[in-house]
Parts: sequence; structure tokens; C-alpha cells
Amino acid sequence: MNAARIAPLRKLVLLGTGLIGGSFALALKRARLVDEVVGVGRNQANLDRAIELKVIDQACLDAAQAVQGAGLVMLGTPVGQMGRLMQQIAPHLPEDCLITDGGSTKQDVVALYREHLSAHLPRCVPGHPIAGSDLSGASAAQYGLYEGRRVVLTALPENTRESIARVRALWEACGAVVHEMSAEEHDGVFACVSHVPHLLAFSYMNAVLDRRNAERCLDFAATGFRDFTRIAGSHPEMWRDITLANREAILRDLHANRARLEELIALVEHADADALTAYIDRASKARSKWGKR
Amino acid sequence: MNAARIAPLRKLVLLGTGLIGGSFALALKRARLVDEVVGVGRNQANLDRAIELKVIDQACLDAAQAVQGAGLVMLGTPVGQMGRLMQQIAPHLPEDCLITDGGSTKQDVVALYREHLSAHLPRCVPGHPIAGSDLSGASAAQYGLYEGRRVVLTALPENTRESIARVRALWEACGAVVHEMSAEEHDGVFACVSHVPHLLAFSYMNAVLDRRNAERCLDFAATGFRDFTRIAGSHPEMWRDITLANREAILRDLHANRARLEELIALVEHADADALTAYIDRASKARSKWGKR
Repeated sequence: MNAARIAPLRKLVLLGTGLIGGSFALALKRARLVDEVVGVGRNQANLDRAIELKVIDQACLDAAQAVQGAGLVMLGTPVGQMGRLMQQIAPHLPEDCLITDGGSTKQDVVALYREHLSAHLPRCVPGHPIAGSDLSGASAAQYGLYEGRRVVLTALPENTRESIARVRALWEACGAVVHEMSAEEHDGVFACVSHVPHLLAFSYMNAVLDRRNAERCLDFAATGFRDFTRIAGSHPEMWRDITLANREAILRDLHANRARLEELIALVEHADADALTAYIDRASKARSKWGKR
Repeated sequence: MNAARIAPLRKLVLLGTGLIGGSFALALKRARLVDEVVGVGRNQANLDRAIELKVIDQACLDAAQAVQGAGLVMLGTPVGQMGRLMQQIAPHLPEDCLITDGGSTKQDVVALYREHLSAHLPRCVPGHPIAGSDLSGASAAQYGLYEGRRVVLTALPENTRESIARVRALWEACGAVVHEMSAEEHDGVFACVSHVPHLLAFSYMNAVLDRRNAERCLDFAATGFRDFTRIAGSHPEMWRDITLANREAILRDLHANRARLEELIALVEHADADALTAYIDRASKARSKWGKR
């Protein structure tokens, strides 16, 4: 997409001025696709920092006031805060204003759009940039974060083609590769390759800690352990929220994982060498193939 | 340990001339602690390569012949080949020759020593250098592989103090940090922090592959998935052998992991936010603490 052919936004409003929204604003500024960025947040120090870093041009503590005259609102907060913010802005949103978000679960965000912004659904285009980080806050915002990264849009049936095309074009101007899928497919895919691995890593760490000689075990843990458990160090509240938000898809995958684990236990109990080799071989081949992509 | 104070070996015999044994020989050569290294293997090309790389001074296809006049025999093959080799060398081992190994499971290797080298037990000191790699063969042997790495010795009650001290001193001359524990404790610790994570990673990959949209899922897998599944790409036959060799300890840990997974599934099913936070928090805190070691 040629950035020169996209009409610039007069005013972008970030609800939440952290890694996701801040990096989006920086990328659009660099592409000269936004005239003014207004950041809304609850933490004055973070807003001050965002102005200092030129992530935003103006700070505002009141979301309703901030969205006046906005061309695009980006919800970049944790999903748990989005409902309240949608409620606050609903009566004040300009009629032609686009709305998108960076939430890592989508069916629940779609439900929030339907609940709080029902009059604006043609212009609410849910999104998920696949660019997580352990960092957060305005200081974490960076140019180029989305360069070559994937962004999933889970468009609503109510969306106008123009709304989808415009949100897509803005992400592409940030360097992102945009994919579209349904919110249901999105939540299934990310339960499988992101949410469930996190939960399995938490579960494994708890099993290690249950051992009487846990400290001794951790003393001898090496590189395999380090990589396998890296995601077990993730933020508890964030992962509780993701887990509850995407509960159904996650439960389906957790049950499938339990069945596979039970099969494995049976193979080891029966010392079934051939079946064990086949079991490991299937996993190993697939992982090696994935690594060569 | 001051290398200058260790009496050099006149002849070191490597049964298996790959990463583990080869790197051991290179380190001892650099420390001027060995006069002659003889490598035994089944693959002439690998033996030629070992000579070319000066990992060994002489190659030999016959283990029985090779050990004549040896001061130390290092078993550096997969554990599955060790019994046969012990049987072959037993009648030919010099009376004062030390024997050690680099097997990644220890109770099974101890049983092999007892079965095949019962007359030599005072000088059989089982070991496990914690320095794995995806690489193998003589080309993988490298100077400094053991620098700062841990080596576990699981000494036998029959071992003389001199045998243990000498094997320990040679490893320390390679730059390794030597720990002693029982073979049973060793196998429990490594089931916990190495073997079971591998098996859980295989199990998870199989659950992913079972999905109807597995390819789509793998398309969107990112850095969390990459690290969590890295060990799932490991060698099937090697991991089948380790799993069967350390079956009891692994089963205990697999059962504990299944119980923890079932607890997690119940928390998600009941959407028990507080208990879920506590579950994740315990794992996350422990992993973060481990990462700061």
C-alpha cells in the first residue's frame, strides 16, 4: 500500500498510551499520515512521558472530551478497561470516526463493541497486532515495532468496506502485514499457539515447585528449561484476564492437551518403544519444519 | 584445582568419538594432562575426521584392543551402546584403569557397570556433563565446551576415594564445576528439569497437529511458541531411549504434571479468577527469580 495515496488523519486519539497505541502513533507520524495525536490515560506521569517522547502531541484525562473531532480512535488498553472507555466515548464520537483496538482476544472485544457502540458498528474494526513485549508504558513505544509484523483484523459484518480498507491501509503504512479472519477463528488460533502454551508453562512450573527438592532441581536446570519456561514469567493479571476472556477456546485446547498427555503417560507406562518413537517423531518433524519457515 | 598438580594420563581411550568424549579429550590435551588419545568408533569417516581435527591421535575399530594400557576409558556413546562396549572391554581392562561415562541417565548406567564391570567397580565413576548440543560427531567436539559447565558425578559406594578424586580433578582441569549426588537423585532432578519438559513439548506439538486448522495456527505462532517448543525438535530415538531409561522418575513427574494440569482446567472451567491469579503468580514469581540467578 502506497502511504502517499492514503488520506492523512487530522486527529488520532489513543485510549491508552503504551506500547501498542504509542508505536502505532509513532509509525503514522513518520509516514506523515496523522496531523495531531491526543493521548488519554489515567497516569499523568505516563502521559507527560508520552509528550516528552513526542508519541502524543496532547494529553487528556477525559476520554469523552478527547474524541471530539477525532478521525480514528485506537483502544490500546488492556481488554478489561475497554468496555468502560467505549461507554464514555459513545455519546461524543464524531459520526464518521473510525474505531479500532489492539486487544489480544477478539470475541469479547466484539461483544463490547456491540454492547457500547451499537450506533457506530459500521466503523468499529477490531484488530490484534502480533507484537507483544514484556515492556509497557509510553517509554516502550517505538518506531518500527510493526515493521514486518502481522496484524489480524476481525471485521464485523456491519463494517463498511471503506472502514476496513482504511484501517488496513493505516496498518500497512506502519509496515505491518494485515490478515483478516473471524473473531472466532482468531481466538481459536491464539488459544492454540499462544494462550495454552502460557498456561502449560505455568502448570509445569507449579509442578516443579511442588517437589520437595525443587531448589535442587532448579539449580541444575539448563537451556532447555530456560526456553521452555520463559513465558511462565509472564504477567499474572494480564494472563488471568486473557484466560477468562478466551475461556471456551482455551478449554477446548487444554482438554486436547490433557488427552495427549494421558496417551503419552500410557506409552511410558507400557514402555512401548515403537509408539513412543512415533509420538516423538511426529512432534519433532513438525517443529523442525516450522523452524525452517 | 591446579592442573599442574594432577598426574597426566598416559593413554585416554574414548569409546565414542563425538561431542562429549571429543571435547573432553581436547580439553585434557590443552591442559597437557594426556599423552595419547585413542578413539574407538563404528564409523570410519568419523574416526578419520577425529584424527584430522586432532581430537584423537589414533583410531581403532576394536574396543578390546584399544583399552590395552589405558589409564582412563571414557564412554561417550548413547547409553544404549554402553552395555555391549563394557562387555567387550571387561576382560582386557588394565587393573588400575579408571572408567567413566557421559550418559544423561545414571541409574541405568550404574546397573550396566554392575552387570558388566563388576571386577572394576572401585574405579568406575559414573558422570554426566551438562553440556548438551544439537550437534554430534567428532566435528562437534570443541575446546572449552566444559568451561564453567556443570558435571555431575554419581559415585558408587565401591569407588575408591582416589578414583573419585582423580575423575573430579580431570573434569575440573577441563574447566567444569563438579557436583556429586546419588544416581537416584540425579535421575529425579533431570527427569524434572530436562526429560519431562521435552516430553511435555512433544505432547503439546502433537495436540497442535491434531487440530483441523493446524497449519493456520502454525502460521500465526510467534516468539512464545518458538521458545516453548524449541526442545520439541529434539532427536526422536535419543529421547525415546532417555525416556525408557529413566522411566520411573519420569512417570512420577508426568503424573504430577497431569494433576497440576487438571487443577488448572478446573480453575478455568469455574472461571475462578482469584485462584487462577494465585496459580499463575506462583509460577511467574518462581520463573522470574530463576531467571535472575
